[in-house]
Amino acid sequence: MVRAVIMTAPEQPLEVVEFALPHLEDGAVLLRTIYSEVCGTDVHLHQGHLAGVPYPIIPGHINVGEIVDLAGAPVDLDGQPLRKGQIATFLDVHETCGHCWFCTVAKTTTRCPHRKVYGITYSAQDGLLGGWSEMIYLKPGVKVLPLPEGIPPQRFIGAGCGLPTAMHAIERAEIMLGDTVVVQGSGPVGLNAAILAQLSGATQVIVVGGPANRLAEARRIGADSVIDIDALSPAERISRVRELTQGRGADVTIEASGNPRAVNEGFAMTRDAGRYVIVGQYTNLGDISINPHLDINQKHLEVRGSWGSDFSHFWRGVRVLDKHGERFQWERFITRSYSLDQANEALDDVSHYRAVKALIDPNL
Amino acid sequence: MVRAVIMTAPEQPLEVVEFALPHLEDGAVLLRTIYSEVCGTDVHLHQGHLAGVPYPIIPGHINVGEIVDLAGAPVDLDGQPLRKGQIATFLDVHETCGHCWFCTVAKTTTRCPHRKVYGITYSAQDGLLGGWSEMIYLKPGVKVLPLPEGIPPQRFIGAGCGLPTAMHAIERAEIMLGDTVVVQGSGPVGLNAAILAQLSGATQVIVVGGPANRLAEARRIGADSVIDIDALSPAERISRVRELTQGRGADVTIEASGNPRAVNEGFAMTRDAGRYVIVGQYTNLGDISINPHLDINQKHLEVRGSWGSDFSHFWRGVRVLDKHGERFQWERFITRSYSLDQANEALDDVSHYRAVKALIDPNL
Amino acid sequence: MVRAVIMTAPEQPLEVVEFALPHLEDGAVLLRTIYSEVCGTDVHLHQGHLAGVPYPIIPGHINVGEIVDLAGAPVDLDGQPLRKGQIATFLDVHETCGHCWFCTVAKTTTRCPHRKVYGITYSAQDGLLGGWSEMIYLKPGVKVLPLPEGIPPQRFIGAGCGLPTAMHAIERAEIMLGDTVVVQGSGPVGLNAAILAQLSGATQVIVVGGPANRLAEARRIGADSVIDIDALSPAERISRVRELTQGRGADVTIEASGNPRAVNEGFAMTRDAGRYVIVGQYTNLGDISINPHLDINQKHLEVRGSWGSDFSHFWRGVRVLDKHGERFQWERFITRSYSLDQANEALDDVSHYRAVKALIDPNL
Amino acid sequence: MVRAVIMTAPEQPLEVVEFALPHLEDGAVLLRTIYSEVCGTDVHLHQGHLAGVPYPIIPGHINVGEIVDLAGAPVDLDGQPLRKGQIATFLDVHETCGHCWFCTVAKTTTRCPHRKVYGITYSAQDGLLGGWSEMIYLKPGVKVLPLPEGIPPQRFIGAGCGLPTAMHAIERAEIMLGDTVVVQGSGPVGLNAAILAQLSGATQVIVVGGPANRLAEARRIGADSVIDIDALSPAERISRVRELTQGRGADVTIEASGNPRAVNEGFAMTRDAGRYVIVGQYTNLGDISINPHLDINQKHLEVRGSWGSDFSHFWRGVRVLDKHGERFQWERFITRSYSLDQANEALDDVSHYRAVKALIDPNL
Repeated sequence: MVRAVIMTAPEQPLEVVEFALPHLEDGAVLLRTIYSEVCGTDVHLHQGHLAGVPYPIIPGHINVGEIVDLAGAPVDLDGQPLRKGQIATFLDVHETCGHCWFCTVAKTTTRCPHRKVYGITYSAQDGLLGGWSEMIYLKPGVKVLPLPEGIPPQRFIGAGCGLPTAMHAIERAEIMLGDTVVVQGSGPVGLNAAILAQLSGATQVIVVGGPANRLAEARRIGADSVIDIDALSPAERISRVRELTQGRGADVTIEASGNPRAVNEGFAMTRDAGRYVIVGQYTNLGDISINPHLDINQKHLEVRGSWGSDFSHFWRGVRVLDKHGERFQWERFITRSYSLDQANEALDDVSHYRAVKALIDPNL
Repeated sequence: MVRAVIMTAPEQPLEVVEFALPHLEDGAVLLRTIYSEVCGTDVHLHQGHLAGVPYPIIPGHINVGEIVDLAGAPVDLDGQPLRKGQIATFLDVHETCGHCWFCTVAKTTTRCPHRKVYGITYSAQDGLLGGWSEMIYLKPGVKVLPLPEGIPPQRFIGAGCGLPTAMHAIERAEIMLGDTVVVQGSGPVGLNAAILAQLSGATQVIVVGGPANRLAEARRIGADSVIDIDALSPAERISRVRELTQGRGADVTIEASGNPRAVNEGFAMTRDAGRYVIVGQYTNLGDISINPHLDINQKHLEVRGSWGSDFSHFWRGVRVLDKHGERFQWERFITRSYSLDQANEALDDVSHYRAVKALIDPNL
Repeated sequence: MVRAVIMTAPEQPLEVVEFALPHLEDGAVLLRTIYSEVCGTDVHLHQGHLAGVPYPIIPGHINVGEIVDLAGAPVDLDGQPLRKGQIATFLDVHETCGHCWFCTVAKTTTRCPHRKVYGITYSAQDGLLGGWSEMIYLKPGVKVLPLPEGIPPQRFIGAGCGLPTAMHAIERAEIMLGDTVVVQGSGPVGLNAAILAQLSGATQVIVVGGPANRLAEARRIGADSVIDIDALSPAERISRVRELTQGRGADVTIEASGNPRAVNEGFAMTRDAGRYVIVGQYTNLGDISINPHLDINQKHLEVRGSWGSDFSHFWRGVRVLDKHGERFQWERFITRSYSLDQANEALDDVSHYRAVKALIDPNL
Repeated sequence: MVRAVIMTAPEQPLEVVEFALPHLEDGAVLLRTIYSEVCGTDVHLHQGHLAGVPYPIIPGHINVGEIVDLAGAPVDLDGQPLRKGQIATFLDVHETCGHCWFCTVAKTTTRCPHRKVYGITYSAQDGLLGGWSEMIYLKPGVKVLPLPEGIPPQRFIGAGCGLPTAMHAIERAEIMLGDTVVVQGSGPVGLNAAILAQLSGATQVIVVGGPANRLAEARRIGADSVIDIDALSPAERISRVRELTQGRGADVTIEASGNPRAVNEGFAMTRDAGRYVIVGQYTNLGDISINPHLDINQKHLEVRGSWGSDFSHFWRGVRVLDKHGERFQWERFITRSYSLDQANEALDDVSHYRAVKALIDPNL
């Protein structure tokens, strides 16, 4: 039997239930979970802020485990056969169709209407399709990536979903060598964006966020300046950014805060003809008021939303973890590990900012 | 003596006054005005909606004339000497410094703090630096472009300032062959954007605007569909665009309306992962409410402001006029010509949408 | 029974043989061929110039037909069910895997090692997988595109494989409004490139090619200038292009000639800091000598190879055919139609430049 | 009196001569030279490999000095007044016109026909317009950049001309996070490219070059792998790159070798659909043979020449020096300092690869 956490409905306590070991279809892989991430999205799922979620679900979209069984001859992206005993992760997004207009003409697979996500849009009634479980069933065709030996599983989970999400945002940010980048937000996406901005050539990275434990992490991973939202008013934050940028504002600002009003600050923190990437507005928390003349047209600004991520962002994230693991030590984002039975506690700690990053360890 | 129109202050009647013929500095050119444009910006100038205008000014930033005098050996951009008798136009933007951070590092000369504009930010106290005048004084270094023989002066003025403005917006729109483009607004910028969208490969161009005389022009220049804002509500306009685009919305939307609320419609008219260029918000007409989650982040939208234009847009516009003059017949945008003494009437007609495009002819 | 043309091996006469009607797998579609294209690639196949071809094959990669049978519920890219009686075409490229590194990380599906092409890399032993046949078997998942009513099948075949190939090249050419574009080659790819360059904003398109019947077509579809390679030497051709471009050379040159030495001319015909797209070197016809200092480094040139095409190019090509059919009348490229039994004659005419474009009509 | 080195003609010994202190035009600046670079271009100048050089010249295009005099009120790019006592550098490129077609329409100022370069295309007959001199005369409008306090002058010269040159090449390389980059050449441009590739997100940087002292520097600045051209044949070098890249080749290759035949290796070292930047072919050292089918078209390769640099590259380079000075310690590239009287020796050491980087110190 396999123990797994079930989120039966929004705002209901999580439960641990037992599943039978699944039968493997041809091409499927069975992963024994080593760690699963607790992500801000799991909090949103629990608050019922996402549409189209087929509760009950097994949460956990970013996972690492050991291949304990497989059927047929599944391969990795280099065409190498997967084999038992490998430590591996996989892209949570699956069933991107490859045939619809968004997949083929717009080449924006993150808007494919057929895509599903492990731990989010697969129902527990359809199997072990989330990571807060002793085992995860990888359907045929799921993109499995053996973890390079140099990346400890904890480091991979410490980076978590924030790394590919930030990778996509950074790709859209088109940072140039010598740029100043402001990152709004110091949660997992913001911290990863601050890392990737440095790795992309920014010579000044300013993180605007809070609370103190997160700002300490921002400093640790190399932010040149940190602006505490609890200590400074919005106007003061904007002034501070201007002081640090010869009065012009940042070349690129990346919003990763989750707060709609941060968008107003972001416009003001960005220089004329700069670029503003919005990646933190993952749920609908209401409207804001903007001035299209001052904020966009006269400013000659470029604003880019960034939704989800695809396998390229995931793969590039793993390359970065492998190369820069010792420098950034993503595992230090993990405040605490929780057993399956402590999943409610994990959600509570994340939703109250007591953890920078939490991890589910089914072996505890 | 030279007769010229003076705008002494916002909301004051224009006056015709006489100037002495100027002395030419080395490299300067004297142009006898053939035609000068009446642009929406002239209405804004008269309403006092632009900051930093050194009234009194001689309006008229897009002009065509005959070279009647020159000092030294000014050349065109191909290094050919300018000569008396040539029919020429010139870039209204001058004194872009070439040394500041925006000119050299950001390479966004339209944000150079030193740039000045003929007919807008040069004072009449400094000379004949606007086109609503019998003569225009072109300072040394002004970028003079002899008009190709195939372009009648009326056609050039019919295209007017809207052509380089739309050229810049279209450059930022990055239209691909087979795209659907919505243009919001059917004034001079919108009509030129609708022309340039077709020339850039769009296979469906939809113009949303009014009143009837402008929509007739939109149809004449080849818009595939025209949506009348006086006949349909915003929600109906959005539905109509969706019907014409398999329910997805346009690949690219270009806002050229001048109405802040058009921006909300524009978000809804654009497909996921599409591009939205805002070029019509040239003056501050107030705030709007947007939803950063739905409008930008989840939509994976790209929003680009487009401010001003540079010589490349001007030059490319002239290439287009030369090649496609017979097809689009920009001179037909001109509703009426006005003498210097009728300048007040011209402004009034333009501000009340009685003219698609008005022209000042100092020879009337 | 189904009659089909078989190419058994390079340099062997084509034969017409009979096949049994295939059984349809779930999701498959049976197309009754209306027309199939004769492409330059078919000549290369017959000369044995392509590697990895599983002779015997049924040639014919660009096809249009009527859906006469289908199994299960195949849909088009908008998710609409396909149905009997529809006139449709399909993307010849199939089995692009969607999982390998080129598909997922490099996002260059045209370099996917798993892709197959109807009429080229499918063997006749595996079924009716080419268009020179009364029927074509579309495997499950083949991307089927119902032909818009406004596009006569002859027009679609007249455009042929040259249209998506040129579409990809033009996408890489990044033409701007007002650019001058030189197209080297006046075969089907070159003529389509000359059309698409115009539709992308070029205000001067110069076609360099021959023989006379093809140059007549270049003029008919709107080339501003035509340079006859039989009348002028390479040095004279280069001089002519320079004369037409203020001595600078073209902003963009597109090589679609198939002659390696054209590449040397192309370097010389392109301006400093211009762009040179090479799409005509589809088979290996030997080496050339270049000077990396003069041709590339000092010239600050950008050279881009363009290989194959994907569904986006195919779809955009159909949009262009639908919008601009009357203007360009692609069907006029078709010099002659051939029955299945005349396939040898068709190849011979194409290989000797007697036809601009030839068509196989199994109903003759 | 001011002592300066004169290169009277190719292949002639350099001489030290005395100049009078210049009179300063309005806006001019007089710099007391602290250090001047000895660049590979100075060797080319001495060998007579560059066209259009107005011998006699004072060599030395990258320089740092102290402002000892100024006339009028020259400012830096932030509009701040320059003042005596500042340690400053300046862009060697001057007189880019800002009016020609390349400056305004093509926006490629490095191809402006009017640009001049200190130490290269200014004659000694026109003044102290090169850095191998006790004083340098900065004409009005020269772009002066006060050196940030954190950058020791030796570090700035250690980076030298190779830094902005590599900056331009890297800009054209468009490296993505997780890319593998091969740098061909381990001279000053190659070493700087290897640094900037790391700073741009490459997670694997492979340097191909020699001799041993340069490869030691490549390792010191963080190259993941070093391939010694004296130890391996071209075929072995290519195999080695393929081994390091799952058989695919590098995502991006940057040629900075100066050897035409390196271009053939570069094609083979780059993956399909990759990018190849050619920046090392600064003088004409002859032709090479390429195969346009295999090397470019089928490979779907992008090849970009990179010529010169502009102020943005210079400015961004200084940002990088300021941020990453301790990490890369560019001053360690300097093998030796030479007095004005030792300039012949300096050229000889550089041309025989005895120095990675040499420096002229007029105070020795």
